[in-house]
Amino acid sequence: MTATSTSSASTTPAPPPKDSRDRVSQFMKQLQDQICDALERIDGRERFREDMWERPEGGGGRSRVIRGGDVFEQGGVNFSEVFGSQLPPSILKQRPEAQGHGFYATGTSMVLHPHNPYIPTVHLNYRYFEAGPVWWFGGGIDLTPYYPFEEDAAHFHQTIQKACDKHHPEYYPVFKRWCDEYFYLKHRQETRGVGGIFFDYQDGRGQLYRGPNSDGPAAEYSRSIGDIEPRRWEDLFAFAVDCGNAFIPAYERIVQRRRGMEYGDRERNFQLYRRGRYVEFNLVYDRGTIFGLQTNGRTESILMSLPPLVRWEYCYEPEPGTPEARLYDIFLKPQDWANWTSEVAGG
Amino acid sequence: MTATSTSSASTTPAPPPKDSRDRVSQFMKQLQDQICDALERIDGRERFREDMWERPEGGGGRSRVIRGGDVFEQGGVNFSEVFGSQLPPSILKQRPEAQGHGFYATGTSMVLHPHNPYIPTVHLNYRYFEAGPVWWFGGGIDLTPYYPFEEDAAHFHQTIQKACDKHHPEYYPVFKRWCDEYFYLKHRQETRGVGGIFFDYQDGRGQLYRGPNSDGPAAEYSRSIGDIEPRRWEDLFAFAVDCGNAFIPAYERIVQRRRGMEYGDRERNFQLYRRGRYVEFNLVYDRGTIFGLQTNGRTESILMSLPPLVRWEYCYEPEPGTPEARLYDIFLKPQDWANWTSEVAGG
Repeated sequence: MTATSTSSASTTPAPPPKDSRDRVSQFMKQLQDQICDALERIDGRERFREDMWERPEGGGGRSRVIRGGDVFEQGGVNFSEVFGSQLPPSILKQRPEAQGHGFYATGTSMVLHPHNPYIPTVHLNYRYFEAGPVWWFGGGIDLTPYYPFEEDAAHFHQTIQKACDKHHPEYYPVFKRWCDEYFYLKHRQETRGVGGIFFDYQDGRGQLYRGPNSDGPAAEYSRSIGDIEPRRWEDLFAFAVDCGNAFIPAYERIVQRRRGMEYGDRERNFQLYRRGRYVEFNLVYDRGTIFGLQTNGRTESILMSLPPLVRWEYCYEPEPGTPEARLYDIFLKPQDWANWTSEVAGG
Repeated sequence: MTATSTSSASTTPAPPPKDSRDRVSQFMKQLQDQICDALERIDGRERFREDMWERPEGGGGRSRVIRGGDVFEQGGVNFSEVFGSQLPPSILKQRPEAQGHGFYATGTSMVLHPHNPYIPTVHLNYRYFEAGPVWWFGGGIDLTPYYPFEEDAAHFHQTIQKACDKHHPEYYPVFKRWCDEYFYLKHRQETRGVGGIFFDYQDGRGQLYRGPNSDGPAAEYSRSIGDIEPRRWEDLFAFAVDCGNAFIPAYERIVQRRRGMEYGDRERNFQLYRRGRYVEFNLVYDRGTIFGLQTNGRTESILMSLPPLVRWEYCYEPEPGTPEARLYDIFLKPQDWANWTSEVAGG
């Protein structure tokens, strides 16, 4: 542990470099390009269609969608860069220093819905904000399997952990817990999937966890390590870059392992049913969706995350002893996936 | 117009009769029974399955679902009666007099998703609250067609209007506008369907419109008529009863007109796509859904309103000149359906 308990009493973060917006937005665009190139290569059949759009209040974006591919039933990768006169209330509550200032936000987000139920859905979002005296990085990546494969969850977490550990040994432990907490469907008492990492309001002042749940494991762990040493803007930017670059290595191996597995109506029906949870999460809880709708964002780009086909079924419960039940019992609860080994599983 | 501009300065409504809770909950149960019996008769093939449930914090309900019927792909009719120590913040904001008091709520709600895309989806919800010094009735009924038939929208509105007019000539004009305003998807700039009526916080004090939108047509119309004369609890209960009883006559004729119409993939795909709007509305905007999730309601009963199968499609737009385009152009905007005649349409 290199964490120290320095006080982070400064009331505003150190100012960003003069070219901060250009550098982050360039990276976000390049991340979108890199991800789309890799996904087209992986899919092997379909290509992304691009729509450029402008936001009347300022800014715009590039939305890219792939549909009916060999692997991807639907996938969206969005870049956006928006300006506005006032952040929405939900963010101002967290960053009162931004009150009365205009804001700048740029980011890349992605959701992939594969055809084959053995391939997990995956989501990525990295974003950067400036508003008056404050700036911050946020985002994360998380995996939502339909069928339970421990080695896939472990590979995903280990790849992300490695990217985090390059920057600070406490990033992964805090942001992994934050992810479990954020991607949680309270009304179902389920995590959305096996998680990954999630963070927000990272501005180099030493407090890592800045979520709302002061009683949860993320806050508790964060308190146990205390504040970490202050980080510069450059450090956080480099961290965001490495997180973004970790996506393809984290996901591609899982796709290649699972794409050839045969499935039938049972697996397809379960996938469509579980996709309903994705819709419930995104429309009821997701901060990015709510921010987009509140700031008059482009609806089609915001709701591109919704699956192409979804089922709801009243009072569905998986049959005990089936793979579907194992998903609920093990994969929809927080687990220490980065330390999973086949030996741990007795395999 | 019998509306008068009497002042409704009383700070709390007149107290309800001693047996108010029993009488309303009896009616709500009987409404559920009556609706289920009629729907089974109309469907002709399937029957409702019932689940009784209890809420740990107090109260419970009867959820009934029909699936795979001849007419109904899925339908849910819920009765519930719940007690709690505190209303959720969203309601307390509207009824600050209830702060610090326990509450009682009972109601019946229903959503039907027919197979045939020519038969509209329909929603009904009537509810009654008591909390300390305040009580009120709320609810409504609204129709969501997939294919545009003016005579169906007109029949539905005329049937409801007749039930309203028995009680006050200003009910329908105010509550129809309120419904258009409430069932509105801001991010799509579409009404959910052709509407019907919606009202809330009706406690006999003279102000009819009590919605949040002080600039909208419902508020404007309501201001133009001023307060109506005070109404007794008995008057409002009788109004709720007649509204509930109007559902079967309003809907059955439409089902019988449309159930024999043949359809193919095109109509089915459009129906599944439009069902996505239903999901978006219920999860993002619907007060009943939010109340249910906030008060730790029974998730399966609350989300029974979600359709059994749904599609999302990035950037879908109907082709000009098609029935699908006519739905958007005419049926997803507020219209004076009660006064539609085939002469108006030039037919």
